[in-house]
Formats: sequence, structure tokens, C-alpha cells
Amino acid sequence: SFIRGMKTVTLIPGDGIGPEISAAVMKIFEAAKVPIQWEERNVTAIQGPGGKWMIPPGTKQSMDKTKTGLKGPLETPIAAGHPSMNLLLRKTFDLFANVRPCVSIEGYDTPYTDVNLVTIRENTEGEYSGIEHTIVDGVVQSIKLITEQASQRIAEYAFEYAKNNQRSSVTAVHKANIMRMSDGLFLRKCREAAEKHKDVKFTEMYLDTVCLNMVRDPTQFDVLLMPNLYGDILSDLCAGLIGGLGVTPSGNIGANGVAIFESVHGTAPDIAGKDLANPTALLLSAIMMLRHMGLHGHAQKIQTACFNTIQDKKVLTKDLGGSSKCSEFTEAICQRVQDMD
Amino acid sequence: SFIRGMKTVTLIPGDGIGPEISAAVMKIFEAAKVPIQWEERNVTAIQGPGGKWMIPPGTKQSMDKTKTGLKGPLETPIAAGHPSMNLLLRKTFDLFANVRPCVSIEGYDTPYTDVNLVTIRENTEGEYSGIEHTIVDGVVQSIKLITEQASQRIAEYAFEYAKNNQRSSVTAVHKANIMRMSDGLFLRKCREAAEKHKDVKFTEMYLDTVCLNMVRDPTQFDVLLMPNLYGDILSDLCAGLIGGLGVTPSGNIGANGVAIFESVHGTAPDIAGKDLANPTALLLSAIMMLRHMGLHGHAQKIQTACFNTIQDKKVLTKDLGGSSKCSEFTEAICQRVQDMD
Ligand SMILES: CC(C)[C@H](C(=O)O)[C@@H](O)C(=O)O
Ligand SMILES: CC(C)[C@H](C(=O)O)[C@@H](O)C(=O)O
Repeated sequence: SFIRGMKTVTLIPGDGIGPEISAAVMKIFEAAKVPIQWEERNVTAIQGPGGKWMIPPGTKQSMDKTKTGLKGPLETPIAAGHPSMNLLLRKTFDLFANVRPCVSIEGYDTPYTDVNLVTIRENTEGEYSGIEHTIVDGVVQSIKLITEQASQRIAEYAFEYAKNNQRSSVTAVHKANIMRMSDGLFLRKCREAAEKHKDVKFTEMYLDTVCLNMVRDPTQFDVLLMPNLYGDILSDLCAGLIGGLGVTPSGNIGANGVAIFESVHGTAPDIAGKDLANPTALLLSAIMMLRHMGLHGHAQKIQTACFNTIQDKKVLTKDLGGSSKCSEFTEAICQRVQDMD
Repeated sequence: SFIRGMKTVTLIPGDGIGPEISAAVMKIFEAAKVPIQWEERNVTAIQGPGGKWMIPPGTKQSMDKTKTGLKGPLETPIAAGHPSMNLLLRKTFDLFANVRPCVSIEGYDTPYTDVNLVTIRENTEGEYSGIEHTIVDGVVQSIKLITEQASQRIAEYAFEYAKNNQRSSVTAVHKANIMRMSDGLFLRKCREAAEKHKDVKFTEMYLDTVCLNMVRDPTQFDVLLMPNLYGDILSDLCAGLIGGLGVTPSGNIGANGVAIFESVHGTAPDIAGKDLANPTALLLSAIMMLRHMGLHGHAQKIQTACFNTIQDKKVLTKDLGGSSKCSEFTEAICQRVQDMD
């Protein structure tokens, strides 16, 4: 049953604190009268024909229809024997770009201020190919797979992103001095995209050098573009600069408008169900989603309410330095949203 | 011609500022009456039978005899067509452990204080295997090679290092959630070594989580143990926390006492030959070397002189925040060394 004028979004609450923070986001969206209805789906590992791991068909169908997902944290213990469901989602919907804006939140004290950058990570191949072999006993190889097509696609995306988001420079991050062929190919595609987008400044930097420069002065960076594993590392490093995964949004972007936005922190089983979780990362991811859907007014309103609540320092969850419950923090944001009407 | 009681060390001054900072170290060693004589050798790429790249035979012979090297920066442009000479040196002498202590220098202001950790990096395989192929046009693979033997060797080394250096914990850094076989093997060997050394605390952490935690609070880490590429990244990140590669020593350790100590900063061609370089990283590497050779008294004396000079803030090179020349900074350290007699 679809309500006229409403868009539908697939909601994957996830494990641990996932349901609580999802409820918080839904509540804030309601307060802000966001024209969205949720289709809640779960993601448990399912084995298809030939033992292939897949996500539940109901979740696949929902995403195929809505094209837009919001997802809480999913736990995949290594011992579970199946691949990370986070990765399986990215693969299933060919979400080739992992986008994580890292922006210092005013009033939330961290060792750094004025961080304002975005990591754009190739999300489908590289070190995450999943191809590994035992050559002989005690000798294992993992394959890092870099293709021209995926490299070109992500490079092109990064420059388009820079332009659409008023960002002026893209830095390609690589180790082509060591992995000359694979990172070399990736880098070549970045250079080609740079040639096509001369209005965006382009630089190249070794991954190790980026890490070193990042902790010395993160304000020198704008858009960072890189293969899969480097993005995994750098996005967490950058999240650390602005206060951790509790305040960092993330988007996984595919072709034709398909996208899943997710909080990338853990499931925090120790505080699950206790109304102590911080919903900020999922909320900021949901705000990214609103912008992706063209709902800029709602996005701006909720973002202002969220940041003002943090700046105000009166109602904060424990990890943010306060002593309020998740529901109280959520309520404070709702109140501000309503006050803006 | 060997002088009785003197040990011989192979000195590879290197490119760019290499000769200047090497001269600085030699001068300070002379002032401290270190019983070492230098055998200077160069490292240029040479092609042997079958086109195999090697280091010059004279350098190989010297190292085979002295077993101990001190090395300035070497430049290997990707365009040179030969592998990094830094890597070739590590490979030639099977220097399996890359050891980088990162300790905050009192009086040298950085965003962090009280950093006191050591990265121990597997130095021979992993992502640095050098094995890459084009599968079909536009599809490239790089092979990350992890062996039981090398993993065991480095894990064992890390625990021995912790004990010999009064360090209480070792953290294995990995992505075994993604590279289950290769990082899985590495991690298994770390766990086995931990079992053998129960007096050292052992923890495991994902690489991305380490990066995030590192920038939030580096004081939580002690010894970090990891495969090759992760070590490349983390050692630079940690260097950034204490002020950069200009103040960070490094040792490449092999079997049977063979070792090369090196500054890991670049060749700084822009200031080469201008008496402006900072010799601290090479000096601290040389101090690591003295300890490796059992010359603890000399090591301590020179270290105190170096740190006191930095703390004093009167005679510093430009990168350290001063306006003195390399020779003046060197002279200030020599003076302090002599005053200690
Ligand atoms: C959960 C895990 C598989 C994932 C990754 O390694 O990509 C996470 O660290 C991330 O960054 O989204
Ligand atoms: C010079 C380069 C090949 C080297 C590496 O990648 O290991 C350097 O970054 C290092 O950390 O020693």
C-alpha cells in the first residue's frame, strides 16, 4: 500500500543496537514530515543453489523496487562461515562507490578541527575480491584484482562528485611504486578522468604519505579517491579525526540511482536494548540519503537540528560525552525540528 | 685496514641529502668516540645474468662481512624501470623484520604527547611479493603472498622484541575478516607465538580499527605486529603522530645479526647540498644500530645529546622549527656529547 507522493525506502535495521537507532531515525523523520515510508527487511545469510551465499529474496525484491536503502550495523562473526553480509549487500547491488564525508562537528571536541574531506573508495574489487588459494602447504595467496572498467567508473564518479558537491580537488591514493601493474592501472584511470575534468585540481599521493600527512594536517585534503582496502583504512582513520564511527555517515552508491546508506560502527552488543546507543551516524547517513533522493530541504533541517543538539551539549548520549538516553537525544532533535516549523 | 677493537659498519650515504646527513652522523660518532669505522658503499641498480636486478657486488661483499649497515635515503623513480633499491636491499639480505619505534620527543610540539610504540612489519612478502599479471586486457592481479614460515618468524621476533625491550603487549594487526586465508594464516602464527610467550599480553585488531583508535589515543598501543603493507601504512601514520619522518628511526633486521638501519624520509632534492637537512632520523637510526651492536653506553650518550638539543630549541634545523644549518645542529649535538665526558 503506497501513499501518494511518498517515496519508499528499504530499511535494514540490523543487529545489536541497529533496531534502536533505526527507530530513532524513523522518529526524527516523522517529526520532520519527511515524505518517506519504510519497508523493513532483514538481512540474514541464505544459501542458494550450489551453496552460493545470498541475501534474502524479500530484501532483494524490496531494494530492486525502492532502489534506496538505509542500513544499521550487521554482525558477521568470522566463525559464521559465510561472507560479511555488508560486503554481500555491496556486491549484490553493484554498489561501486563507497562515499564517506568526514566533517568536523562544531562543538564536539576532538584533537582536530576544520576537517572537511570525503573518501571515495572503489567498493567492488581490489583486495576484497575474495579470491584466495593455498599454493602448497603453508603458502597462501590472496588476489588483488584491479580492472580498467571498475577503476574508470570510480574515477569518473569521484570527479563528478567533486563538481556536484562544490569540492575543488581530488587526490588519488595509491602504492603504484610497489604494485606497479594493479595500482598502476588504477592510477592511470584516475589520470585519464582528471584529463577530462580539468576544472578539478588533481594530485597523486602514496598511501603511506597520505596517512602521515593526514595526522599532521587533515585540512590539506578534499576528495580522496582510492582502491577498496585503502579506502577501508583511510575512511576509518579520517573518522577517528572527527570523533569516530559514531558520528560518521556512509553511502554505497551504484548505477541508476541505486544506493544503500549505512552507519559503519559496530553492533555494540554490550549496550544493545538499553536505550544507550548514539543514533548520529545512522541519522547522518539518512541525511546523505535524503540529499541523494533530492530531498534537500528535509536534509538540511534535520542536519541543523542534529548539529545544534550536539553543539548545545545539554542532551548527549554517553559516547558523545553526555549522560542522556538514546530516546532523550532523539527527542531533543525532534523538538528542534518541530521548532523550526 | 682494520683498527683493533673497532667494529666496521657499511655506510650507504644515499641520494639527495643522504651524504650531508651521513656526514653529520659520522661527525657526532667521532665526537662520542664510538669505536666504529665506516666502509662507504653506494647502491645503484645493476643488472646481473638474466636481467635480474641486484645491488653492486662491492656493497654486497661489505655487508656480508660487516653484517651491519647504516643507510640514507635512496631515490627510485618509478620511471627508472628497476625495483626500489630500498626493497632490493631488504630482499638481498633477507631483512625480515622492519622495526620502527615511535616515541614522542619531549619539547618537540606535535598534536600528540606520550606516544611510545613500536611497529614491527613483516618485510619480505605479502603485498610486496612483486608478482603481478595481466589476466586479460584491462584486468590485472597482484598477488599477496603469505607464508607460514615468514609469518612465524616475524611473530616470534615481535614477542622476543617485546621481552628484550621491556614492552608488555603485542597487538596483531590484520584484515582476516576479508582476507581470511592469507591474513588468517598470519594471525594464526601470531596466536601461536602468543601461546609460547604468555608473559606478554596479546591482542588482535582490524587494521581499520587500529587506524581509528590510533588517531584517537595512540597511548593505548605498545608493540604492533603486522604484514608488510599494513606496516608500511601504520609506520608512516605513527611517524606523523610524533612529528614526521624527520625524527623517526628505522631498522631492518635479518637473521644472524645482519641488519640495516635507515632514515625513511625522502631524498629532499630541493634542499640537497645546501646544508639545510635535518640529520635526526638517520642519527636515531644509527643509535638503534649502536644498541643492536651492544654499544649501549654510546647510544645513550648520543641520544641524550640529540634530545637535549631539540628540547633546548636554540639550534634547530628549519623543519624542526628553527633556522640553523645542518652543520650547526650537528655541532650543537657534538658539543653536548663532549660536555658529557
Ligand atoms: C564490515 C567490514 C567488512 C567493512 C569493510 O572491511 O569494508 C567495514 O570495515 C567497512 O569499512 O565498511
Ligand atoms: C620506499 C618505499 C618502497 C618503502 C616502502 O613502501 O616500504 C617506504 O615507504 C618504507 O616504508 O620504507
